[in-house]
Amino acid sequence: MLGGSAAFFATAASYFAKVSLIAVVGEDFPERHLAFLRRREIDLAGLERSPGKTFRWRGEYSYQLNEAKTLETQLNVFETFRPKIPESYRAPDLLFLANIDPELQYAVLQQVKRPRLVACDTMNFWIDGKRSALARLLKDVDVLIINDGEARALGGDSNLVKVARKIREAGPKTLIIKRGEYGALMFNHDRVFAAPAFPMEQVKDPTGAGDCFAGGFMGYLASTGNLSDEAFCRAVVCGSVMASFAVEEFSLDRLRQLDYKEIEARFKEFKRLTFFEDI
Amino acid sequence: MLGGSAAFFATAASYFAKVSLIAVVGEDFPERHLAFLRRREIDLAGLERSPGKTFRWRGEYSYQLNEAKTLETQLNVFETFRPKIPESYRAPDLLFLANIDPELQYAVLQQVKRPRLVACDTMNFWIDGKRSALARLLKDVDVLIINDGEARALGGDSNLVKVARKIREAGPKTLIIKRGEYGALMFNHDRVFAAPAFPMEQVKDPTGAGDCFAGGFMGYLASTGNLSDEAFCRAVVCGSVMASFAVEEFSLDRLRQLDYKEIEARFKEFKRLTFFEDI
Repeated sequence: MLGGSAAFFATAASYFAKVSLIAVVGEDFPERHLAFLRRREIDLAGLERSPGKTFRWRGEYSYQLNEAKTLETQLNVFETFRPKIPESYRAPDLLFLANIDPELQYAVLQQVKRPRLVACDTMNFWIDGKRSALARLLKDVDVLIINDGEARALGGDSNLVKVARKIREAGPKTLIIKRGEYGALMFNHDRVFAAPAFPMEQVKDPTGAGDCFAGGFMGYLASTGNLSDEAFCRAVVCGSVMASFAVEEFSLDRLRQLDYKEIEARFKEFKRLTFFEDI
Repeated sequence: MLGGSAAFFATAASYFAKVSLIAVVGEDFPERHLAFLRRREIDLAGLERSPGKTFRWRGEYSYQLNEAKTLETQLNVFETFRPKIPESYRAPDLLFLANIDPELQYAVLQQVKRPRLVACDTMNFWIDGKRSALARLLKDVDVLIINDGEARALGGDSNLVKVARKIREAGPKTLIIKRGEYGALMFNHDRVFAAPAFPMEQVKDPTGAGDCFAGGFMGYLASTGNLSDEAFCRAVVCGSVMASFAVEEFSLDRLRQLDYKEIEARFKEFKRLTFFEDI
């Protein structure tokens, strides 16, 4: 099935803004997936097709669908991937660096004119194994979007408030912690913002929800150009909205047949989910 | 240390409304704890002192402070406790039945004039071991306040939306699911309401947080007399506020030195934590 951070992020973001994608696929990558991304008006100038097979991941989820267990990872063309940025991509307004070796994320950042906003994701594998490369990258990143286990590992504490202070001192002024079925938490300047996840009756597949969150978040910010604290809060909700759609079906199936009216309607449902009057 | 559902609930609720407590203690229960409850203007006419020792619980918490591990439970005077309701308690406006054998909860309900609102708590021990007594009780309960593991066990499903439908068909029209550091979720008529937990830098002891939540929830409703859906949402936030204070210190130490202004201020912080503008 079509998957991968690039596909999830780009598709989610494409409902809000123009996306230019950097990624690698193998010779086996089906033309129909490219056709789908093109229909979403995603710029594929940065998509490289390499000899060999496409990256593959296979996993299963626990009872509560909260934790993924990897059954198989085939790096394939990912193993030797060195992102090359096309000339037409060299001055991005906003840049998202999906989870990959922090040296490669840094290499991408080096190849572009400093964007107005740089966000990135990472994972325990790099936090444990490439700590100093990650530290160098984080100095140049504005927004770090990771899950709570990763945040605790990176911040070296179980308390998320302490973790947020440490991470924000190390670079990113905004830390967004994804908590799966429990929503997202943003530490941003003097403010903490919490968005619950939408309680869903149908959760078929949480794969890619985090990348769709990042896509909704960055896509919304790109669409308005407004980078205020208030816009960041709305962007977190847009991220939550896109993640809530993503989990309803396998792969990108729900995001294939979405329109902006449905996104607006769910945004309103999020508002209703969290709104209360003063006492 | 002073603990127990009755003490946590009554103290939290006492900041909003007049509380009448039903409980049992042993001969060893220190007079200073009673003096504290009296200072909170909690009616102790229903507090029984029995021969023997007071109930005791000893436990420890995991790394994230989310899960309690019981190290020791001494039932003591609890073993033979049969709640007797004083004449002056026979017409309560609102009634909260804290976690205990559902037969005893039912016996309390039988001894009073039907209150405007009955809420109750329970735990896996009763869900597994006293299923039919619990089912009988739930038919007469308006609000069930339990944690997510208990809700999943009671509803027999991992999906909380499905769980909520099943439980609400079995009696309580309102289901409130406590999720510790992740906040609370209320299923109430046609509405779902989510309140995050307040991200705290200092979490010393989560013991009693759930009972303080219930105390804040019921206390707020009692104080206004308004049982609308909107009031229920504000009550969930008041519950979250009281739980957030409870965890800051051991036992009831933070709630000993609290004033209503601090409660209002934290309510406002919850508002700021969750508020976002429309897109």
